Amino acid sequence: MRLTGGFWGRRQTVNGAATVAHSRTWMDRLGWTTNFREPSPKTRGREFSDSEVYKLTEALCWESARPGGEDHRDELAELTALIGGAQAADGYLHTAYGRAGQPPRYGDLSFGHDLYCAGHLIQAAVAAARTGTAAGLLEIGVRAADHICATFADEGFCGHPEVETALVELYRVTGERRYLEQAAAFVNRRGHRTLPEHEFGWEYFQDAVPVRSGTVFGGHVVRALYLAAGAVDVAVETGDDELLEAVARQFDRTLARRTHLTGGMGSRHLDESFGEDFVLPPDRAYSETCAGVATVQLAHRLLLATGDLRYGDIVDRVLHNVIATSIGDDGRSFFYAQTLHQRTPAEMPSGRERKRFSGGGRAPWFEVSCCLNNMARLIASLGTYFASEDSGGVQLHQFAPMRVEAGGMVLDVHTDYPDGGTVRVTVVEAPPVPRTITLRVPAWASGADGVHRKVFEGGEQIRLDLPMRPRWTFPDPRADALRGCAAVEVGPLVMCAESIDLEDDVRLDEIQVDTSVAPEIGAVKGRRTTPFDESWPYQSHRTTTEGTDPVVVPLLPYHRWARRGPSTMRIWLPTTN
Amino acid sequence: MRLTGGFWGRRQTVNGAATVAHSRTWMDRLGWTTNFREPSPKTRGREFSDSEVYKLTEALCWESARPGGEDHRDELAELTALIGGAQAADGYLHTAYGRAGQPPRYGDLSFGHDLYCAGHLIQAAVAAARTGTAAGLLEIGVRAADHICATFADEGFCGHPEVETALVELYRVTGERRYLEQAAAFVNRRGHRTLPEHEFGWEYFQDAVPVRSGTVFGGHVVRALYLAAGAVDVAVETGDDELLEAVARQFDRTLARRTHLTGGMGSRHLDESFGEDFVLPPDRAYSETCAGVATVQLAHRLLLATGDLRYGDIVDRVLHNVIATSIGDDGRSFFYAQTLHQRTPAEMPSGRERKRFSGGGRAPWFEVSCCLNNMARLIASLGTYFASEDSGGVQLHQFAPMRVEAGGMVLDVHTDYPDGGTVRVTVVEAPPVPRTITLRVPAWASGADGVHRKVFEGGEQIRLDLPMRPRWTFPDPRADALRGCAAVEVGPLVMCAESIDLEDDVRLDEIQVDTSVAPEIGAVKGRRTTPFDESWPYQSHRTTTEGTDPVVVPLLPYHRWARRGPSTMRIWLPTTN
Repeated sequence: MRLTGGFWGRRQTVNGAATVAHSRTWMDRLGWTTNFREPSPKTRGREFSDSEVYKLTEALCWESARPGGEDHRDELAELTALIGGAQAADGYLHTAYGRAGQPPRYGDLSFGHDLYCAGHLIQAAVAAARTGTAAGLLEIGVRAADHICATFADEGFCGHPEVETALVELYRVTGERRYLEQAAAFVNRRGHRTLPEHEFGWEYFQDAVPVRSGTVFGGHVVRALYLAAGAVDVAVETGDDELLEAVARQFDRTLARRTHLTGGMGSRHLDESFGEDFVLPPDRAYSETCAGVATVQLAHRLLLATGDLRYGDIVDRVLHNVIATSIGDDGRSFFYAQTLHQRTPAEMPSGRERKRFSGGGRAPWFEVSCCLNNMARLIASLGTYFASEDSGGVQLHQFAPMRVEAGGMVLDVHTDYPDGGTVRVTVVEAPPVPRTITLRVPAWASGADGVHRKVFEGGEQIRLDLPMRPRWTFPDPRADALRGCAAVEVGPLVMCAESIDLEDDVRLDEIQVDTSVAPEIGAVKGRRTTPFDESWPYQSHRTTTEGTDPVVVPLLPYHRWARRGPSTMRIWLPTTN
Repeated sequence: MRLTGGFWGRRQTVNGAATVAHSRTWMDRLGWTTNFREPSPKTRGREFSDSEVYKLTEALCWESARPGGEDHRDELAELTALIGGAQAADGYLHTAYGRAGQPPRYGDLSFGHDLYCAGHLIQAAVAAARTGTAAGLLEIGVRAADHICATFADEGFCGHPEVETALVELYRVTGERRYLEQAAAFVNRRGHRTLPEHEFGWEYFQDAVPVRSGTVFGGHVVRALYLAAGAVDVAVETGDDELLEAVARQFDRTLARRTHLTGGMGSRHLDESFGEDFVLPPDRAYSETCAGVATVQLAHRLLLATGDLRYGDIVDRVLHNVIATSIGDDGRSFFYAQTLHQRTPAEMPSGRERKRFSGGGRAPWFEVSCCLNNMARLIASLGTYFASEDSGGVQLHQFAPMRVEAGGMVLDVHTDYPDGGTVRVTVVEAPPVPRTITLRVPAWASGADGVHRKVFEGGEQIRLDLPMRPRWTFPDPRADALRGCAAVEVGPLVMCAESIDLEDDVRLDEIQVDTSVAPEIGAVKGRRTTPFDESWPYQSHRTTTEGTDPVVVPLLPYHRWARRGPSTMRIWLPTTN
């Protein structure tokens, strides 16, 4: 699988050329890498800073092996030595615990993040093994995993899930079944209120309800999604259909009730949690970037595990409206949380670290800076999410210019998706037997047929035409914060209005749009309403747009917003009718 | 001023008979009173627990002096001895700081709450002086104030405002001008980013912008309102009109853009802050009870300082929809935060302490349990907010059965407000010269005349008839979370629908009401909409109520909700049109 350009190919280039170096510079400056070289009682950064070094390492592995990618093998050798140097003789590895003057190992399972960090180490080790880019890293991961299996044979688990999916991946790479069994034990131990009660409840760290009995995801969004991904991995490798169905059921209900239009998840800043069903306020959307990364990972796992291609729809949505939105054009700035409604012009942070609570523009770094490295590893390995094979042929889940060698075939895909809706697949090589090429048909393109089964010949073309007309989208009436509003979507892209495109005297919070008219390409029609000019915002009358002048409201893809300076922004537009 | 029964007289009785004893029991059990007797390196409770003992003491002073109140003078003598015993020889008083093994005095101005606690001590001392109920308490307060003046002559202030208004009150009681000057200095020192930056910004503890230059209240709601009350006190006593106008301007804009229909303030759980203009989500309303107490205190100060009676409207609204809502019928349970929309049936906590973040029913105690004692002191002293006098006569700001001796007159007020709208004032005694009796006419009763000027004779009656027809209220179109909704108000009461009153097969989140029909007493008419039954809550069509059966939606005053077991609740009702 090789992306040969286009929307995501360009982002892979920026990721490999700029993002990984930017991240390394910051982590060196802040001492997060120094922690490995000079462990001290007073480590720099937070209890999860080690994991950032591992995530970057994983990204460098994928990037170095990516056809056309930047070669970071020298840096990987250096990082491998750095990481390995901090590993204890028995395999334990965390720079903040267990040495003289430091808190004990595993002294706080709820918040210590020992196992969370080890999980990311193991994922980097797995990437190293799969790509052959970092000699010795797999062995470090294996020693860490062996220590975990020895320590947690009977009880205990980490407040922040992540090691579960890492251990299954390590099992896949090494064939060592103990890792799978340990992952299964971690998944099954959760949900019995074993950890001390958190001030946000046991739900916060996924210890309120066993994975098997949940009905919908709740609590801390990233924790919930990481655990679910680990549970799918365990279910697939152990044939545990009950567990797989439990995760799919919860994810489906989360998509139906707890997901923003962008595919982003999370509506509470306080505890970085989902919030209740249909609590989806655009102006307080949390929609953490890392939750987007986790949604892609979980949805793709469920797609592969169940064969249900519609999980590709949410990957498509999240990639184009969460991941693409988060990262700045320069690859050196990003959103931690992603509001769907900016009420006051967004401050554009310049050069300095920010608190994760901060609103405003993309920032170069956050005190908790998981997003950037998490995206870096996702984008560098993005090809793996775009196609799959089975005994019958090839499935194209995402649309991008790419070459796919799978299912006994070589395919070249040509498309300018998501800007255009035409996808052309050229069969470069195919065996002389019937094969199936399946292109996912998004729900918004219902009617199109994406399944082609035949004996393909070299040079043959398949074409999928997706309707890219702008369309109105309306919310469920129970989504109170969206009542009386509509949004415009174009293909997988959620559109937004940004104040910088409005005429000087038009304010974004005074516009109501007319949904009886189909949206045009790049604009909708509306009118200006007159807000109350009162000392109290609750009155005995409604305001009206009758008799006011029409206005044109230019729209742009949400992922393009906040790239031209301070502005206000809305996805959900109040309607006149 | 004596409340002789009615809505608030009954609550005063419960407050004096149950609430204060309930609070004392909890504070003894938790060791918050023990801290005074046995100061230790490891004090019980939080850094502001001392202030709870002071707030209770203040409440007991007001209650003991209230005509018809419970006499707590013995307990006051005991508390005075307890408090005085913990005071250092130089006047400093905080049970957690300055002793062997404890952190230093004023070691953390941002969060130490030294001065905040001292402020509540001084307010209790002032109440003791005004009521003559706690001999020796004034002297303790004076010593504390003297120590503050000596320590903070040149710089410094507390992260949590409160001592400002306390010092002005102490000046009023003692005539010692140093206290007023110290209060003015504290007010003027704020807003220059002197404290270390908070993770929620300097705005959080009112250090981002000087009081004089603010345009609207922001940051932590209770901090903002306490500081504003202190600023009004300083402005009035020093003749600082610029300062008074600055506070009035900010409060007016806060009422117009950052206040819930109930009069509650605060829309962010994360930092207990206002949130931006028109961010007023019913389901995530924070509307802290203490913010309600502070709003009453500030609005009444502005009313007295400016002579603008409309500030009485917000006192009326907050008393009947925030204060009355918070406290349970038994006087032993309360809401910390007050949602305007309960989505899932509220858990009814039984007997145990809760986190302040917890939703659900009224709880007997919270880890941060400021609300209960704050309400206790407000309710015990409530009469002081209901009437005032000036050289021309008497102003009746709030309506309750009461006897008012003021402005050279004795007045008996008879009313069953807020259940009824008729207010009868009987002039029991009056001088043989023209006097003015002014009854506030709420904005929702515009047209009525409340000003009566003449030579009154004994036995003469004045009558005010306020329209108590239920009325529809609509939100400003910029209040996105309220779009497409209406609420019903009756007099000062905000009404709500509670699921316990609905027929079994009707769900509160499926109802849309018809605002073309006037609301009836106790009910409105609506229809059921059909939610999407889809895997994704955003679709290309809207749902409709056409053709569905009409339903009757019973309403009750918001302050009555959550008193009959778990239920869902809404104030803002989606409309069909």
